[in-house]
Amino acid sequence: MRLEILPVLGIGDVTEGDDLAALIATAAPWLRDGDVLVVTSKVVSKAEGRLVDVPADGPDRVAARDEVLAGETARVVAARGATRIVQTHHGFVMASAGIDASNVDKTRLVLLPVDPDASARALRSTLRERYDLDVAVIVSDTMGRPWRNGLTDVALGVAGMPAIRDHRGEIDPYGNELHLTQMAVVDELAGAGELIKGKCDQVPVAVIRGYLGETRDDDEGARALVRDASLDLFSLGTAEARAAGLREAATLADGPGPSPADPAAVDRAIAAVAGVVAPGTVLTHVTDHEVRAGLVATVPGWPASATGLILGAPPAPVDPADLVRFGADLQRLRTALAAEGISSALLPPPPGSTASAALAV
Amino acid sequence: MRLEILPVLGIGDVTEGDDLAALIATAAPWLRDGDVLVVTSKVVSKAEGRLVDVPADGPDRVAARDEVLAGETARVVAARGATRIVQTHHGFVMASAGIDASNVDKTRLVLLPVDPDASARALRSTLRERYDLDVAVIVSDTMGRPWRNGLTDVALGVAGMPAIRDHRGEIDPYGNELHLTQMAVVDELAGAGELIKGKCDQVPVAVIRGYLGETRDDDEGARALVRDASLDLFSLGTAEARAAGLREAATLADGPGPSPADPAAVDRAIAAVAGVVAPGTVLTHVTDHEVRAGLVATVPGWPASATGLILGAPPAPVDPADLVRFGADLQRLRTALAAEGISSALLPPPPGSTASAALAV
Repeated sequence: MRLEILPVLGIGDVTEGDDLAALIATAAPWLRDGDVLVVTSKVVSKAEGRLVDVPADGPDRVAARDEVLAGETARVVAARGATRIVQTHHGFVMASAGIDASNVDKTRLVLLPVDPDASARALRSTLRERYDLDVAVIVSDTMGRPWRNGLTDVALGVAGMPAIRDHRGEIDPYGNELHLTQMAVVDELAGAGELIKGKCDQVPVAVIRGYLGETRDDDEGARALVRDASLDLFSLGTAEARAAGLREAATLADGPGPSPADPAAVDRAIAAVAGVVAPGTVLTHVTDHEVRAGLVATVPGWPASATGLILGAPPAPVDPADLVRFGADLQRLRTALAAEGISSALLPPPPGSTASAALAV
Repeated sequence: MRLEILPVLGIGDVTEGDDLAALIATAAPWLRDGDVLVVTSKVVSKAEGRLVDVPADGPDRVAARDEVLAGETARVVAARGATRIVQTHHGFVMASAGIDASNVDKTRLVLLPVDPDASARALRSTLRERYDLDVAVIVSDTMGRPWRNGLTDVALGVAGMPAIRDHRGEIDPYGNELHLTQMAVVDELAGAGELIKGKCDQVPVAVIRGYLGETRDDDEGARALVRDASLDLFSLGTAEARAAGLREAATLADGPGPSPADPAAVDRAIAAVAGVVAPGTVLTHVTDHEVRAGLVATVPGWPASATGLILGAPPAPVDPADLVRFGADLQRLRTALAAEGISSALLPPPPGSTASAALAV
């Protein structure tokens, strides 16, 4: 058993309207059923006319490029300096939405194919119908990734095979069930194709031979590789998420949460701000049911769902500046509670108490 | 030109103290100079005795595993439910620090090799000295990644070739200089090796033939692939970074920053909290130099570096609860300023002013 990685030489420059299937079939008459074609997305984009004209240099070029980037961007994931990591309309998270200025005239930018899975399907279909070749097609591009230096080629689109090889449910020789092993084989195939493309000059298509037994059409393409942002532990850049935390703190909504606050978490929050509140400020966590019941009767608007109360008193003597500072300190505490996942509400002090304010948690 | 990916069959189970070089050389007498061996880290770990005993199941197993994980963890990057993405002592960011319970007895866990580059160097060196074979060695493992479903194999260690192929400075046929193209070829080679390993059962070593001309020892190994966390836009999970933002808000230090605050950013911060401050609260951004100069003379401790001041007044009439709420609102504003990168300080109101407090920015 062996796999082979072969370059398709002699395709030359690809321009708008070119017939990729014909270019590939002519350059590689040696293609066989079951081969996996790894096609650089740039030649797909060029053939499909996914190019925009921009000035060759200067501020106008920057402005034009920014506008193109905005059009390709579904959301900005992270930014630092001139770097923009964005999620594209396809769902891919890539630097500059995959817009590329290399291997193209200085006055043009290459955008990603509108639908790389459709591009792969079309190429596979044409090769089958016109050249009687039953191959799988991967549309690949070069991407960076968090945590690791260096880029690798991965799949943007695929037709003729599933994107993922699923080992879940298999049992290893020791009797352990494999829980997590879904391999993104099309990404590994794209990377394998890059190995030969990178050794040659200007080779936009590589062939992996021996990997597939038979092609298969019943798959969802490379969309299977796109993880939903809501499931992703890294859906935002660190700086962006930190700023989101700060903005959230600035606009914290009032209101205790639906579930009882964990007393240990409340105490952690009090401890977190202990070093920054005004000297002498007293914050007391009250969770006793009878005390709360008493307060429910006396504080207008006291929510019935409240499960705890922090009674606060500013440093004596009370002057207006101390009360302002005390309010700021309570807001710090509310924010520390929010960091523990605990909602809170700022309330007027209970009548008759020595407190100056109360937080419901 | 072609590359071949070949499996090394017949290695069988590897246990502590096994001589990997002998196992490989015996199983693959067909190895040639210039081959790249992709060796699954698990067999390296097993041969090196990187195994720990744990209970087969139950809470004791969970506790023992947690302890092992803590030992392998340099820092926690992200957590959700039982998932822990951590940075290992090597610098790799991986789920569960690469600790693996598959393909091993139920009472043992396999840890990553202590130094996968050293493991790769040792194997390469032994194959050269004892078997006169000049090959490159990659120690590979399976990893997930943000944003994309499915796992791929990547390199943890390498010897005999550089981890990265650097295209920077090259000129494409259109005259554009390639700025960013550093390819993590050892990751692509590791992935290519997985393609054949995954098609066979229990094949821990694959060979990539035709990729390397000559081996080369003058490299820094797979450490070149580890991006420093300070340079990484995704050094923390989104939830962790958001919570860090909240904690930062809770403990904001007093003090205007060293550089003048951008007036537009200050106004954005005021607008951000406009909907949540008490009705009637007035926040006025004062940047006029003379006003500030006047305040410098009258407010004790007013910092000379201050470049702006927000004067606040609570809704009239002033009662203690309003002042507490007003203080909380000023803290919200400080947090919104922090989200814009602007430091601030809460000050007593200037004597003689109608304000109740001042923020220096």
